[in-house]
Amino acid sequence: MLTKQKLYEGKAKILYTTEDPEILLADYKDDATAFNAQKRGKIVGKGQMNCQIAAHLLRLLGDRGIANHLIDCPSLNQMRVKKVKIFPLEVVVRNIAAGSLSLQTGLAVGTVLPQPLVEFYYKNDDLGDPLLTCDRLLLLNLATLEQVEQLKNLALQINQILSDFFNNCAITLVDFKLEFGLDQNQKILLADEISPDTCRLWNQNETDPQQKIMDKDRFRQDLGQVETAYQQVLERIMNQLGVKNSIN
Amino acid sequence: MLTKQKLYEGKAKILYTTEDPEILLADYKDDATAFNAQKRGKIVGKGQMNCQIAAHLLRLLGDRGIANHLIDCPSLNQMRVKKVKIFPLEVVVRNIAAGSLSLQTGLAVGTVLPQPLVEFYYKNDDLGDPLLTCDRLLLLNLATLEQVEQLKNLALQINQILSDFFNNCAITLVDFKLEFGLDQNQKILLADEISPDTCRLWNQNETDPQQKIMDKDRFRQDLGQVETAYQQVLERIMNQLGVKNSIN
Repeated sequence: MLTKQKLYEGKAKILYTTEDPEILLADYKDDATAFNAQKRGKIVGKGQMNCQIAAHLLRLLGDRGIANHLIDCPSLNQMRVKKVKIFPLEVVVRNIAAGSLSLQTGLAVGTVLPQPLVEFYYKNDDLGDPLLTCDRLLLLNLATLEQVEQLKNLALQINQILSDFFNNCAITLVDFKLEFGLDQNQKILLADEISPDTCRLWNQNETDPQQKIMDKDRFRQDLGQVETAYQQVLERIMNQLGVKNSIN
Repeated sequence: MLTKQKLYEGKAKILYTTEDPEILLADYKDDATAFNAQKRGKIVGKGQMNCQIAAHLLRLLGDRGIANHLIDCPSLNQMRVKKVKIFPLEVVVRNIAAGSLSLQTGLAVGTVLPQPLVEFYYKNDDLGDPLLTCDRLLLLNLATLEQVEQLKNLALQINQILSDFFNNCAITLVDFKLEFGLDQNQKILLADEISPDTCRLWNQNETDPQQKIMDKDRFRQDLGQVETAYQQVLERIMNQLGVKNSIN
């Protein structure tokens, strides 16, 4: 696979153009950031683990009818993806209160929500990725009302599939962030990654509120054993899928 | 008017019970706070000016069919009001981008919005009065969906009346914050105050972006001449209403 040039370097991935103008190569990095990149570090092996986790989950979602950008993985930390025009939105689905929802509403961390909550944040580092009301999203022309409804429905479908799947891995899907884009036919595709960087995942075999954390909160909160937790997420996913080898 | 006991002391007013259990006395203070009370000061005469401004505007709104808590003013800085159970919501109407809307969306201060924007904030000092999506508002049981719709409609009606009125005073109503409550019959009443503490008001006779400010932003941004600006708002309101005396 010949890469041509760096198109965009994000906090966790570099995107390269390829010889096919409709295909990009995503190179997953070990770099870790938190709190809008005010905290920076490395999680050894994260690039490979997250690329594999994301590939398995995107393939699973594709099999269940959720159109997404995954093509294949030419190496353990590289993913070929369909080029899309990303909505500047972080679509967050929450099943249990944690993170900014708890900070901003006073709902105790761990409060099970009566129904999944879909929220939109403005993907804008300069502004600190602020929460959007539907009116603000429309005011900023970040998507049309019809697209907002489609994104919300897709997010809820994805939540159902992933919550069930992770539950079978003895992992609780607390919340997660999705990004979507439009392909050249203006069709909405799920894009970006789904990984312990973008999900809160709690180990159902642990009761201790810190021990059970299997996601980037271990890095955010300096809980240690970050690599071990990510590795365990990957192993449980592969076990549940009955696959022994990495995806390609 | 016999007051009985202090019921609640807020940042700008003290509420006292009276001999009538359905009537409270609001005592407007000169104290000024900003940035969730991190900045504190005094604006000399503010208690009297804001009480008079709020009384004139609440009476005007009442005359136009907006039910509100005003009864009368036994003194220049005191207002007798109907007792209501306040919704823990700040209902903000915005006609022009300013303040936190600009900070959180990147819309330049002064951007005229294509239509008035009604926003809900959680009235909770400990949490810093965070912006609420409709879903979060309902999740926290701060009002019912029907009440949210009623509050939004009332806020838009009030905006129309006040924008027209202030326009006749050569003042642009940029944005403002309202609070509502339920009376003993579960009827929604407009409550709290409407004043330069709770509105952004721009003098149409000034073009300089700082000179034109006639509201608490003068205090927030240390622009000086705070008292003069509040006094001018009161005078223009009284001139427009054709009243020479303070309300009682």
